[in-house]
Amino acid sequence: MPKRVDHEERRRRIAEALWRIACARGLDRASLRDVAAEAGISLGQLQHYFSSKEEMLVFALRHISDLAARRVSKRIGALPGSPGPREVLRESLIEMLPMDADSRAGNLVQVAYFVRALHDERLRDNAQEGIPALRDFFAGQVRSGVERGEIAADRDPETEAMLLIALVDGLTAYTLLEVWSPEGALRLLDAHLDRLFTGRPPAGSGVPGVPAAGAGEPG
Amino acid sequence: MPKRVDHEERRRRIAEALWRIACARGLDRASLRDVAAEAGISLGQLQHYFSSKEEMLVFALRHISDLAARRVSKRIGALPGSPGPREVLRESLIEMLPMDADSRAGNLVQVAYFVRALHDERLRDNAQEGIPALRDFFAGQVRSGVERGEIAADRDPETEAMLLIALVDGLTAYTLLEVWSPEGALRLLDAHLDRLFTGRPPAGSGVPGVPAAGAGEPG
Repeated sequence: MPKRVDHEERRRRIAEALWRIACARGLDRASLRDVAAEAGISLGQLQHYFSSKEEMLVFALRHISDLAARRVSKRIGALPGSPGPREVLRESLIEMLPMDADSRAGNLVQVAYFVRALHDERLRDNAQEGIPALRDFFAGQVRSGVERGEIAADRDPETEAMLLIALVDGLTAYTLLEVWSPEGALRLLDAHLDRLFTGRPPAGSGVPGVPAAGAGEPG
Repeated sequence: MPKRVDHEERRRRIAEALWRIACARGLDRASLRDVAAEAGISLGQLQHYFSSKEEMLVFALRHISDLAARRVSKRIGALPGSPGPREVLRESLIEMLPMDADSRAGNLVQVAYFVRALHDERLRDNAQEGIPALRDFFAGQVRSGVERGEIAADRDPETEAMLLIALVDGLTAYTLLEVWSPEGALRLLDAHLDRLFTGRPPAGSGVPGVPAAGAGEPG
């Protein structure tokens, strides 16, 4: 099916054009025409795929999420041995931070979308849709940390998951603003994880302490 | 000096017009002309005060910060007795969250400014300027909490201050997006403060525990 492959290729090219524009000057003032020009196609061709800027942003966001999810799997797969909940959380959270040009561009697309969603109920529903899955994934990791005695038993997994989601969002905003460097954001993230993974289970449970950050679990 | 008073009144009126526009539809597509119309003055009169949208945003941000600082002082002054560091931090952080229509509007102005600052170095410098003072204020409160034995002695005040700044930013973003309610954001903030004010000083220091949130210190 050569035609179908061609469509996917073109959609990807459009997403990459959006990405470059997001990086260079932001999306809030970029039109469909600007994106078509950047992707090297006509406005009519672009409109074959997206009839509005909102549709294009939704597509770009999903494309970015897919890429990020694949990068997270790859990072976790590359950890030595079988990674514990701290490693899994840390790698996932790092992937959400603007640590390099690619993830910075992805974050800039998310910011552009966020701003539009603030004033558009339909977009807001869409912006909210990924949060429960992310919260559940993080909460599952926290629960596993509690079971392993790496996190105190009185921590509520859902609360900790939402605190992580909020924290990484704020770390991202100030990294984009260059209030601190990507490395500074990472240090803050590790400090927060240190407070979560105290390795001090409730008295009497006798579970051993938490391994150092990034040290990897025995396989 | 009646003329001077008139100028201040007009600037305030412009800031309030900006505020209403931020609430209703966001600032990213609002022009100087739109703001003049909302404030009930001519474009020429507006340009007497602000020659660009950026200047107007900087003014609006400072106006919002001034109002917020006054509200924080008032809130802290209204607490019974002499408030401890947890109460001072909590009241300050609540004032930064979009808890009501006014603070939501203030936050929307900040978001509009944030997005422009991402692609404009001059604005970025401006956006960064308030952070060190806020960090130092929060770090001072954390230090006081450590001295009182309400916060563990191994917590680094600057790190904790920056984590609070990042966290409240993320809590704000998701409250604006209606991922959680203002009350939900407050519960998350309190959960984070619970982890900070553990009231468990290092063994042997014999300092008493932390008072409950919002309970107020004896005068």
